[in-house]
Amino acid sequence: MSHNTFGHLFRVTTWGESHGPALGAVVDGCPPGIRFTQEDLQVFLDKRKPGQSRFVTQRREDDIVKVLSGVMPQEDGSMITTGTPVSLMIENTDQRSKDYGEIARRYRPGHADYTYDVKYGIRDYRGGGRSSARETAARVAAGALARQVIPGVTIRGALVQIGKHRINRANWDWAQVNENPFFAPDPEIVPVWESYLDEIRKAGSSVGAVVEVVAEGVPAGIGAPVYGKLDQEIAANLMSINAVKGVEIGNGFGAAEITGEENADEMRIGPDGRPMFLSNHAGGILGGISTGEPIVARFAIKPTSSILTERRSIDADGHEVEVRTKGRHDPCVGIRAVPVGEAMLACTIVDHYLRDRGQTGRLK
Amino acid sequence: MSHNTFGHLFRVTTWGESHGPALGAVVDGCPPGIRFTQEDLQVFLDKRKPGQSRFVTQRREDDIVKVLSGVMPQEDGSMITTGTPVSLMIENTDQRSKDYGEIARRYRPGHADYTYDVKYGIRDYRGGGRSSARETAARVAAGALARQVIPGVTIRGALVQIGKHRINRANWDWAQVNENPFFAPDPEIVPVWESYLDEIRKAGSSVGAVVEVVAEGVPAGIGAPVYGKLDQEIAANLMSINAVKGVEIGNGFGAAEITGEENADEMRIGPDGRPMFLSNHAGGILGGISTGEPIVARFAIKPTSSILTERRSIDADGHEVEVRTKGRHDPCVGIRAVPVGEAMLACTIVDHYLRDRGQTGRLK
Amino acid sequence: MSHNTFGHLFRVTTWGESHGPALGAVVDGCPPGIRFTQEDLQVFLDKRKPGQSRFVTQRREDDIVKVLSGVMPQEDGSMITTGTPVSLMIENTDQRSKDYGEIARRYRPGHADYTYDVKYGIRDYRGGGRSSARETAARVAAGALARQVIPGVTIRGALVQIGKHRINRANWDWAQVNENPFFAPDPEIVPVWESYLDEIRKAGSSVGAVVEVVAEGVPAGIGAPVYGKLDQEIAANLMSINAVKGVEIGNGFGAAEITGEENADEMRIGPDGRPMFLSNHAGGILGGISTGEPIVARFAIKPTSSILTERRSIDADGHEVEVRTKGRHDPCVGIRAVPVGEAMLACTIVDHYLRDRGQTGRLK
Amino acid sequence: MSHNTFGHLFRVTTWGESHGPALGAVVDGCPPGIRFTQEDLQVFLDKRKPGQSRFVTQRREDDIVKVLSGVMPQEDGSMITTGTPVSLMIENTDQRSKDYGEIARRYRPGHADYTYDVKYGIRDYRGGGRSSARETAARVAAGALARQVIPGVTIRGALVQIGKHRINRANWDWAQVNENPFFAPDPEIVPVWESYLDEIRKAGSSVGAVVEVVAEGVPAGIGAPVYGKLDQEIAANLMSINAVKGVEIGNGFGAAEITGEENADEMRIGPDGRPMFLSNHAGGILGGISTGEPIVARFAIKPTSSILTERRSIDADGHEVEVRTKGRHDPCVGIRAVPVGEAMLACTIVDHYLRDRGQTGRLK
Repeated sequence: MSHNTFGHLFRVTTWGESHGPALGAVVDGCPPGIRFTQEDLQVFLDKRKPGQSRFVTQRREDDIVKVLSGVMPQEDGSMITTGTPVSLMIENTDQRSKDYGEIARRYRPGHADYTYDVKYGIRDYRGGGRSSARETAARVAAGALARQVIPGVTIRGALVQIGKHRINRANWDWAQVNENPFFAPDPEIVPVWESYLDEIRKAGSSVGAVVEVVAEGVPAGIGAPVYGKLDQEIAANLMSINAVKGVEIGNGFGAAEITGEENADEMRIGPDGRPMFLSNHAGGILGGISTGEPIVARFAIKPTSSILTERRSIDADGHEVEVRTKGRHDPCVGIRAVPVGEAMLACTIVDHYLRDRGQTGRLK
Repeated sequence: MSHNTFGHLFRVTTWGESHGPALGAVVDGCPPGIRFTQEDLQVFLDKRKPGQSRFVTQRREDDIVKVLSGVMPQEDGSMITTGTPVSLMIENTDQRSKDYGEIARRYRPGHADYTYDVKYGIRDYRGGGRSSARETAARVAAGALARQVIPGVTIRGALVQIGKHRINRANWDWAQVNENPFFAPDPEIVPVWESYLDEIRKAGSSVGAVVEVVAEGVPAGIGAPVYGKLDQEIAANLMSINAVKGVEIGNGFGAAEITGEENADEMRIGPDGRPMFLSNHAGGILGGISTGEPIVARFAIKPTSSILTERRSIDADGHEVEVRTKGRHDPCVGIRAVPVGEAMLACTIVDHYLRDRGQTGRLK
Repeated sequence: MSHNTFGHLFRVTTWGESHGPALGAVVDGCPPGIRFTQEDLQVFLDKRKPGQSRFVTQRREDDIVKVLSGVMPQEDGSMITTGTPVSLMIENTDQRSKDYGEIARRYRPGHADYTYDVKYGIRDYRGGGRSSARETAARVAAGALARQVIPGVTIRGALVQIGKHRINRANWDWAQVNENPFFAPDPEIVPVWESYLDEIRKAGSSVGAVVEVVAEGVPAGIGAPVYGKLDQEIAANLMSINAVKGVEIGNGFGAAEITGEENADEMRIGPDGRPMFLSNHAGGILGGISTGEPIVARFAIKPTSSILTERRSIDADGHEVEVRTKGRHDPCVGIRAVPVGEAMLACTIVDHYLRDRGQTGRLK
Repeated sequence: MSHNTFGHLFRVTTWGESHGPALGAVVDGCPPGIRFTQEDLQVFLDKRKPGQSRFVTQRREDDIVKVLSGVMPQEDGSMITTGTPVSLMIENTDQRSKDYGEIARRYRPGHADYTYDVKYGIRDYRGGGRSSARETAARVAAGALARQVIPGVTIRGALVQIGKHRINRANWDWAQVNENPFFAPDPEIVPVWESYLDEIRKAGSSVGAVVEVVAEGVPAGIGAPVYGKLDQEIAANLMSINAVKGVEIGNGFGAAEITGEENADEMRIGPDGRPMFLSNHAGGILGGISTGEPIVARFAIKPTSSILTERRSIDADGHEVEVRTKGRHDPCVGIRAVPVGEAMLACTIVDHYLRDRGQTGRLK
């Protein structure tokens, strides 16, 4: 059962709400002997951290990750994993002691308030509780550790669409991604998104987005038909991110529109004498198993439901009410979802790598 | 670990290849006391069965499902589940004893041939082995049983797109779905698809499609944040179907293009005094938990890679070859994926229903 | 969830009752490339088969195991695993069409009749249904496959106690085990058990027993603290066998009686330059991980509750009744539990071997 | 996969070593709406705490448990569970900064030092690392929460044997258990154990023990054949406790010595009109499912291997060495295992209760 856990051999369990003392992740199954530093993890938490630009929420969270177990501290300040559970904790520091009285009983449209109340009969309304995107900080910490496991694998993400404004894929340049506040790989889209998001932000509105994540260097043969398919678990793990409403691999929904001739990836023997694909419509996965080509996934994030416009709703007592969500919110949560998507992809691939190693013994 | 199993309390394990003596599913965790007949299962297998029209493969498989365990036979010919594993078996009857010599060593582009060989070092090349869509017959049998579990839940599917030809949603009529060979809910699209697919078929080509599956009557409160989200597991289970490359819930990728005002579903108290949503952009799921609205999911199926056009590839010995896939194939595998998608949705919902009942004790 | 499944990477799901058409096991996660014959499996089913001597039940079951999937048949009649699920089926042939009217409603003392009825509200009373020891035939088939996985591992079992009559461990001779109807390793105990069991059998009574199972050649380092300990899972899997009421590893309950000096196994460097234990009180496991010494486990089997003596009980309608269990029963079910215990130990070790290979990459 | 997690619907994941900053447990699946106080948990941690008498280790650990998530704090200082993961943390306070140089490389006989090194290639030698019994503090915290879940269930434990000295069961008095430093239910054994353990302690030796745990008030019908048997999972979870080498249910190994007539529990209709067992040889479990009678389990704990006597061993460099374990150790770790056994039994029963509620819907 995996309500708050994902993965099988590389297992991540997260815990914590936005307004308790802390939140965290327990990573069970991290292979022993991996040397890393706190900074190796912190750099990814900083990417996700709020308050980095005017296009994301202005909350202030330091998001310092602490490693509580599973490592032997080394003299140079680094740590080496011992194969036992790595407990990662992030303390909550910016919990404004505000009056939640209003939303404690009112269901914000588009939020999980109503469904949590139906399911559990009780709900931590403070800051969204467990349904807060703050939970994703724990994922990013776990993902940062996952990145240390398989040598030669590179995992990167980028924002490719905000509202109806898509990047020009011809302009794709990974070097640009960290040079703008949107993780945009296309420098030409940046001013477009800036002016569009300024408009959205000033209107107290919000908008959706699409993120693309790519894993390069993943060996061929990772994955497990038929209910442990690599693409299936990537889909599951990306869909578990707050506000995600769609996931696709390679050509994705575009594959529905084309013919078998257009979609199939032909093969040849490469100059290095090894098998080579002439295209990657499959997004690096065939039959649920990696091909050795880059693994390419995209996910759609809905606009955050926290908007200043008044919307009709009900409260826990069955009264009809109007709700207007005040507070410091992200006009486009898709931006900060980029490092989260990378983290989920990293964890998924490591898990499959270890599983395949167990099942077939092929890999070291 | 779930390589060939999905679900937690309602667990389905499938086994079998297209060319062994049989294939099947073991359904573990089906609640006791459910009365059903063989015909209740068979009707769904018949929907998926090949050879039903010229638009699907012309193979002949009877696909008779046998119930081998987990039931007490009743005098009227029906069966009652006992709570022990229900073993469902379908014998393979149309295994042409043809010469597989050629594709035994050659990797068909777009198929799982190459990746299975890399992973396992051995591959059952006869009819695609375990990667054959024939495996989905076992899913349909399990899904037919799942449909018996929760009273009042209706699960239906339809084809909404073939190639670039989409249905007109204004014409949606569930009554039409079983009146045409495409499971199309829009009668006006039928002649368009007919002529388009005739063309594809005569060219020895194939094309992709999009299927929509809908579950009505699912009680609010089913699902489990944050890594057992209902939408997450729907995504996983649909993505596990052969050839699926994308999944979306409710507005899906469309949610990326709109604002928070447009996307959020407002609420009111309905005429029956119960909470009511004024729209269903969320596809029936908020925060990973059902809202009580219809659950709506779509998935994209790539064009089958089995086409008559010659494509470049390699063989297991590292030689460059040309491959042309002869045989009886589906010009649009998306058609027969409709009952499979329904089955996966049914199983996912039942599993979550039982899990929620265990965790919260709310439901009977 | 593992109601009818055990193992994580080497997963066994069993299904079937004693009176349906068949029963079986699906082995998921068996590594690819393992060559075996039907006879390699059948030999272990034959060991467990009823009717082999007057000391076991006189039912006649051929117990022929069929391999339905997961293998490529070879020209010499052998099979090679492909890494996909291996479905093993055993048809039920000796289902006497007798009148079960009486025990259909009456709870046999010591049986699972009452508890199944409470839990499920329905019960397959024919031959014990799912609680019948017949289910163990499927385990033996799965265990026979498990034995093929790790080269150099030998798994054997023996009966060491019937009633109060224990073997003399000084006489232990593995070569004797298959030379008598009890799997006794001590030839001197054989006549004692014979006369004692004849007496029990003639009285229509039954008696308990203790089985010892041993795995030699298991590499050091297999197992996983702290809730996936090798001894923990051996205990679980042996305790899952029908009628087992106790499990111990190495010194077991005897370890409670002695001091740390007596119990600890000292170490030296062996003549081959490798670490060597000077004793094996630990039964081959320390901290949940194998030491490289033989793994030694014992389990206690209660006397079967099917006896000819009338016992007080109740029926499903709440009446007090007297029950006398007629039929062909084992006077000492412990005898036929020997191959079952071996099978469970084999599966457990293979599962841990694969898990360790995945987690640490040490093994090939 | 469950290396550091146990349970399915009530899932406990523990993390932490004896010498990191903290250790803890994440309890996932605790039902919502349960009100408890920190003191409700602390009382059980205090029972297990070292330094309570001269018969246990003299280390000083406050073992204050903190609740970091999964609850809504109430005005009266209590907390109510919300259905999200409950993170429990215990900080390590008595980590003597001693020189571990010696045992960092030497394998203490009977410890997990050697096996951890073989498996992981690295080992946290500080205080035993993850193999330290200190990990059980996290179990006790989780178990204390589990006790709050099912109304009417009482879980208690007692020490029934130290070395060869067993209690007289005729003297059993639960009221005595907390009146002596041994959790002994028989006041007459107390002086015997005192003088025996003083002797052991002064000799720098150690001795084994047997613990009995009992759950009363468990409804009939809990458990799940055939690989999720209640007794099977009790066995697994008790066997996972450090130093446990044997587990038995009800008559246990004693059942091997008796006849079917002696072992079966007869039934009658009780004065309240409900089914009643006339004895409880089965220890409250038949066919893996609870009978409604008290659930009775016992487990054997080996003598701790930390003794002052010099023993032969090897070091990580392959040299033969002599090892003498200095430090503050328990002469009989079985004493402090009593609350740990209770905790494991509590968690196991709650997990099965929730699973049964999910699968059959019988219970509220």
